[in-house]
Amino acid sequence: MAGEGDARAHVFVPDLAAPRLDSADHHHLTRVLRLRPGDAVTVTDGAGGWRRCRLADDGGETLAPAGAVEHRPRAQPLLTVAFALTKGERPEWVVQKLTEAGVDRIVPFAAARSVVRWDGGRADRNVERLRRVAREAAMQSRRAWLPEVGALASFAQVAALDGAALAERAGAPPSLARPTLLVGPEGGWADEEREAGLARVGLGPFVLRADTAALAAGLLLSALRDGLVAGSGPNGLP
Amino acid sequence: MAGEGDARAHVFVPDLAAPRLDSADHHHLTRVLRLRPGDAVTVTDGAGGWRRCRLADDGGETLAPAGAVEHRPRAQPLLTVAFALTKGERPEWVVQKLTEAGVDRIVPFAAARSVVRWDGGRADRNVERLRRVAREAAMQSRRAWLPEVGALASFAQVAALDGAALAERAGAPPSLARPTLLVGPEGGWADEEREAGLARVGLGPFVLRADTAALAAGLLLSALRDGLVAGSGPNGLP
Repeated sequence: MAGEGDARAHVFVPDLAAPRLDSADHHHLTRVLRLRPGDAVTVTDGAGGWRRCRLADDGGETLAPAGAVEHRPRAQPLLTVAFALTKGERPEWVVQKLTEAGVDRIVPFAAARSVVRWDGGRADRNVERLRRVAREAAMQSRRAWLPEVGALASFAQVAALDGAALAERAGAPPSLARPTLLVGPEGGWADEEREAGLARVGLGPFVLRADTAALAAGLLLSALRDGLVAGSGPNGLP
Repeated sequence: MAGEGDARAHVFVPDLAAPRLDSADHHHLTRVLRLRPGDAVTVTDGAGGWRRCRLADDGGETLAPAGAVEHRPRAQPLLTVAFALTKGERPEWVVQKLTEAGVDRIVPFAAARSVVRWDGGRADRNVERLRRVAREAAMQSRRAWLPEVGALASFAQVAALDGAALAERAGAPPSLARPTLLVGPEGGWADEEREAGLARVGLGPFVLRADTAALAAGLLLSALRDGLVAGSGPNGLP
């Protein structure tokens, strides 16, 4: 986050007017990062509001404001990556990396060829875990906006999102005109998904693993939005 | 790899004229991927040469050529990512992902603030393991060029590479004029590294973990080289 000065950590708090650390964040700051009273931190409400603070010298969970509440406008357009369920630790990894990349909305979905299925209570528990991962990654990467992690969706639901396009090897270059990318499972899209009438966006000349493709989608859209790179269309417009 | 048609796998072989699977690849193709005699594969020498083949019906390790030897020119400029040693599984992960992204040369190095050190025999063993990871990832992503994984280097060695620039948050946008990016450790660059006189290239507005930054460097350079995106400079030149 620009303007954080010498802040040694960045934390979500429910109330910017009276910022307090919850006990897990207090433990992380004082025991893991070993911050001391007087050390600078930034706090955010996850909705664009943020504020400079210092660790209070009572050793407790209160924070002493060291500046006014500021507001960071949300970058436009909002970026969404929907990723097909994958095995093992990779959903956590994908959510962590997409949060660092600056994606606004992350949606796990069950593709026709997803090997893994999340049923009932398992889906809810897994999505809760992904939301914790997003919160931690947003603090680590100093975001003032907490990304939304959607509930487990169907292909039809993610295909209906505004501006949705399929990530597919022979597709058109990424563009902010297609700010919602759907990334398929290792086995690729099924025919009925490929023929659902969505635009196709390519992420490079090589075959990417599903988790790499999800991160490539987020990083390239974010780089276009931040002006780090330009679109490859006429006039370089993204 | 473009032009591979219906190939179900892609394998490195020492001799394109008389392609044979080594026993590990034979096991992978027949037991893991469950390919059958007659199934199409592509083989490559890792130096741009490649050829369509079919699994022979002797069930053994020979491959029946199904086309002439073709040659894929090396994309230019060559892309290098040098990454500071990090903890745990992450060097393997970085090498796998940079290989998928299309990077040509990957160099682990010891930065001033690298928490991990590889000494003597350990460095050699670890680099050998990273080369195996690169080979597997190059097959999985169907590359005809095997990326080079350099021996463990010092900061001075990677700083002396042609076109080297430091990845740093406030740097200039990535550009093919800087095709060699050095990515620092979690703790950031030390003063003597930051003041070594190298150009600085930024990878986005947020704080990235070291492994994410290494992949962002490779993906953005590769997207510029492939024309997926354009440079953000005047005229959109990369």
